[in-house]
Amino acid sequence: MHPEKINPMLLKSIGVVKRQGKQAILEILPQYAQALDGLAGFSHVWVLYWFHEHDNPEERATLKVHPRRDPANPLTGVFATRAPVRPNLIGLTPCRILKVSGNTVEVADLDAHDGSPILDLKPYIPKGDSLPDAATPDWVKKLRPE
Amino acid sequence: MHPEKINPMLLKSIGVVKRQGKQAILEILPQYAQALDGLAGFSHVWVLYWFHEHDNPEERATLKVHPRRDPANPLTGVFATRAPVRPNLIGLTPCRILKVSGNTVEVADLDAHDGSPILDLKPYIPKGDSLPDAATPDWVKKLRPE
Repeated sequence: MHPEKINPMLLKSIGVVKRQGKQAILEILPQYAQALDGLAGFSHVWVLYWFHEHDNPEERATLKVHPRRDPANPLTGVFATRAPVRPNLIGLTPCRILKVSGNTVEVADLDAHDGSPILDLKPYIPKGDSLPDAATPDWVKKLRPE
Repeated sequence: MHPEKINPMLLKSIGVVKRQGKQAILEILPQYAQALDGLAGFSHVWVLYWFHEHDNPEERATLKVHPRRDPANPLTGVFATRAPVRPNLIGLTPCRILKVSGNTVEVADLDAHDGSPILDLKPYIPKGDSLPDAATPDWVKKLRPE
């Protein structure tokens, strides 16, 4: 199958990010509330969201960036960065779960802006997801926390 | 902004998975080759792909599953599992980079099937992505490697 022949892949918003200072509420649409059953048994969750503020043809066509818009960081292909401009505007952040209640999940450590559509939630499973010895280039080692 | 009001979010295939036994070739479309610049400086990459074999209304409406289709695993909300049936069919796997060359990336540890459309690649950054102490429920601890 040639990739261009694949039918359009349409994402549905499953909810929306509501910022509350350093924390955030994931407000899941009521029709998906049941899909949260069991999430409270995990300490962390991957939040996949849409960088909606960058949803325009120019930013989706950007192939290289200076990470964090800092010219001190080398011009780098977007697939080698976590920049919010890329062909598919998917953001990916592991978050600490503070509370799961009804159709909401309260989390810490989410960098998504208020109003970001949520695409998916996946449990963090350290066996598989945690690779403490993964190697990175020098520019990453020099990054300060955001 | 109410999530239902958000414009449809359309994914583009940026390439396709070609299986080669236990390894896989990520065949990136030539127009995105530049976006790979710098990826070779990382040891691992997150591969985001589309579970194209499950792209039908029934599986995208599934809210609960027995993980790995094993009735011994409790019926669980899909957002608390990594199951390939979910509202947005996004697969997420951290892979070891074997080689980056032109518009291809050779990887190990990818569970995607042959022909899966690739949605995004993101570098694995242990500071942030690696959470060795993340807690999981009992059914996860009992899982055997696939």
